Amino acid sequence: MNKVGIAAYGITPFTKDDKKIESILLESAKNLFENNSSIQKEDIDAVLVSTNNNSKYLAPVLSETLGIQPKTAHSIENLCNSGTNSIVSAYSYIASGLANVVLVSGAERYDSPGQILEWDNSRGEFKHPIFWASIFTSSYKRKFNVTDEQLAIVPVKNHNQSQNNPNALSKKTYTIQDVMNSKKITDDLRLLDCSRSCTGSASLVLASENIMKKITDQPIWISGIGQKTISAGFTKNESFYSMESTKAATQTALQMADKKIQDVDVVEVHDAFSVCEPMALEALGLSDPGEGLTLVKKLYETRNLKINPRGGLIGCGHPLGATGIAQTIEITQQLQSNAKNRQVENANVGIVHNMSAAATSSTVLVLEK
Amino acid sequence: MNKVGIAAYGITPFTKDDKKIESILLESAKNLFENNSSIQKEDIDAVLVSTNNNSKYLAPVLSETLGIQPKTAHSIENLCNSGTNSIVSAYSYIASGLANVVLVSGAERYDSPGQILEWDNSRGEFKHPIFWASIFTSSYKRKFNVTDEQLAIVPVKNHNQSQNNPNALSKKTYTIQDVMNSKKITDDLRLLDCSRSCTGSASLVLASENIMKKITDQPIWISGIGQKTISAGFTKNESFYSMESTKAATQTALQMADKKIQDVDVVEVHDAFSVCEPMALEALGLSDPGEGLTLVKKLYETRNLKINPRGGLIGCGHPLGATGIAQTIEITQQLQSNAKNRQVENANVGIVHNMSAAATSSTVLVLEK
Repeated sequence: MNKVGIAAYGITPFTKDDKKIESILLESAKNLFENNSSIQKEDIDAVLVSTNNNSKYLAPVLSETLGIQPKTAHSIENLCNSGTNSIVSAYSYIASGLANVVLVSGAERYDSPGQILEWDNSRGEFKHPIFWASIFTSSYKRKFNVTDEQLAIVPVKNHNQSQNNPNALSKKTYTIQDVMNSKKITDDLRLLDCSRSCTGSASLVLASENIMKKITDQPIWISGIGQKTISAGFTKNESFYSMESTKAATQTALQMADKKIQDVDVVEVHDAFSVCEPMALEALGLSDPGEGLTLVKKLYETRNLKINPRGGLIGCGHPLGATGIAQTIEITQQLQSNAKNRQVENANVGIVHNMSAAATSSTVLVLEK
Repeated sequence: MNKVGIAAYGITPFTKDDKKIESILLESAKNLFENNSSIQKEDIDAVLVSTNNNSKYLAPVLSETLGIQPKTAHSIENLCNSGTNSIVSAYSYIASGLANVVLVSGAERYDSPGQILEWDNSRGEFKHPIFWASIFTSSYKRKFNVTDEQLAIVPVKNHNQSQNNPNALSKKTYTIQDVMNSKKITDDLRLLDCSRSCTGSASLVLASENIMKKITDQPIWISGIGQKTISAGFTKNESFYSMESTKAATQTALQMADKKIQDVDVVEVHDAFSVCEPMALEALGLSDPGEGLTLVKKLYETRNLKINPRGGLIGCGHPLGATGIAQTIEITQQLQSNAKNRQVENANVGIVHNMSAAATSSTVLVLEK
C-alpha cells in the first residue's frame, strides 16, 4: 500500500466577506502554490472540492481557473465534516494507485445552505444547529453537574488562542463574564458559546510516498483514519452528553496508526459550540466522561496550547466545507514546527476531529512526522 | 492491490414524478437489497450518494433510512458524470483497503439544479445545455458534411431500444420523419434530439475480491478506469466536433484493463443529445472521425444492440446523478447475461462512457466478467 501524506497547504483569512465561492476556492489554492513552488501543477491527478455551496461543477471550475487538467474532479459534501471526508477520499485515490498527487480545496460562504438541515423531521421546526447544541448543553450540564460558567472557559480559551492566528475571524478576547453576559439564544446557549459561520477557504495537496520527496522535505503522514456515521437525525444518538460516532472513529484511527491517545501531542477538535469541546475530548479518550472541562481549564491556566491551538471553530469561525481542511493544516504546521507563536512543544503526533450535525457522523485523523 | 467489482444493483423506473430525493434514493437501494439477499447491511463500510440535488447530508440520511451505520458517508457531485465519479471513488475506497463493501446510490429529480451551469460566463445568457449541444451539432454537421436527417437515426434507434427497458422514460418509438417534425428548439436542434431530465435513482454495491464470493456468483469486475477534465467552460474545448476528454479517458481505461477497443462487446455512451452518440463512438475509437453515424445506422438496421442497449439517455431519460450508475447497471446485466430482451450476444467486455457539460470532463470504465 502507498503511504500517503500532506505535501503543501494554503489558506485564506476567515471573514464575513461577500465573495463568490469560485473566488475563495481559487484564493486558498493559489496560496498553496505560493507556499510550495516545488509542486508542478501538471502533476495533479485529482481535484476534490469540499463545500456545502449549491454551485455545481466546482472542481472543474477550480481546475480551469488554476490552469490544470486533472483526471478526476468532483465535489464532496457531508455538512460540517465535508473537509475531512475530502481528505479521506484523496487518501484513498492515492493509496489505491489511481492518483499520485491530489489537490483538496474546501470553501464556504458566510451564508452557507449547510447551516440548516431541512430533512430532519425529528427536529420539527428546530432545524438550526443551535437547537441540538442547546439540548446537548442541557443534557451535559444535568448529567455531569456542570454550570454555564464552567462551560464558558471554552470560548474564553479559544478566542484567546485565536489571537495568535492571523486568519481567524475573532479579533478579540473575552472573559467568563463577557460570555455569561452575551446574548441568550436559548435557555442553555449564549451567543459566545457558538462558532460563527463565515467565508473562507483552505487547500491541501496530498501525495504518495514516492512523489513526496520531490515536493517537500517536511512531509506529514496520515497514519490513521477513522470514520463513523450513526444517523442523520440527532434524536437517534444514544445519548445527548457523549459523542458515540467520535468514540468509534477514534478507535479505528488509533488502531490503524498503532498509537494510543496518550501518544498524541496536539489536537484539533470540532468545538462548534462550547459543550462540544469537552464532549470531544471525552470521546477521544483524553478525559474521563464529565472531566473534559477540567482539562480545558488546566490547559488554559497553564497556557498549554495542546487543544485547538489555532482557536478552534469558536475562535477561527466555521466555514463548513473548509473547516476540516483548516484543522488539518494547523496540525500539519504544528508537526512541522511551523506554527510560530501557536507552536506546541515536541509535537510529533497530532489528531484532527471533525464532525457533523450533533456528532451523528465523525472523522478522526492521526497525523505524524 | 484489491480487485474491485460489482456485486449487486437496484434501480427505479425513470419518470416525471414529483418525489422527494430521499424517497427515490431509498427506493433504488431497497430494490438492490431485494435483488441480492446475500448482502449483509452491516457489512457496508461506506455509502456514497451521487446527485446534483441541493439537499445536504444525503448519505447519512440514506444510511439512516436503510438502518445502517457505515464508517464513511458523503455526497459526490460533478454534474452529469456524478454517477461514474461516485463509482470511481467507491473503487478507490476498496482498492485502498479503507472499505470492503461500498453502496453507491445516485438520484435526481426532474427539476435538477444541475441542468443549468450558472458559472460559465463564456456562455453569456446561454446557460442551458441545449446551447452547447446546438453548437456541437452545427460544428459536427459542417465538419463532416452530415445532415439533420442523418443525425435523427440516433433518437430513432435509442427510443426503439428503450422499449425493451421497463424502467425507461420513453414509451414510444419514432421515425426519422417524427424527429424532423418535432419542435425546433434551436437552428440545429429538435425536441427529439434531446435527452430529457427526469426523476430516477440507481444503486450499486461494489465489493473487494475476498468478500465478493460470499455475496454473488456473478461478479462483474471493474478492470479499467479513465477520467479526464479539460475545463469547466465548453469554449475551452479544442474543437466542437470531437470529445477530447473522452479520448484521453478511453486511453487510460483501456491501458489499465490491458484491452483494445476491438475487444469490447457492449457499450453505454452518453447520448445527452443526438450528436453526442457519434462523437462518443469516435472518441472511444469504435468509429473513425465522422463515421459514427454510419456505425449507428448499420447497427440499427441489423438490430444489433451493441451501443446503448437500454436506450441511452435519449430513450431512458437523464436523471443526472443516477445516469452513470444506470449505465453501469446495464453493462453489468449484459455481462451477466441477465439483460433479457436487450441481451447482446457473447458479452464479455463492456464499456461505460459518462460525461459532463459539453464533454469538458469524461469518465470511461471497462467492465469484465
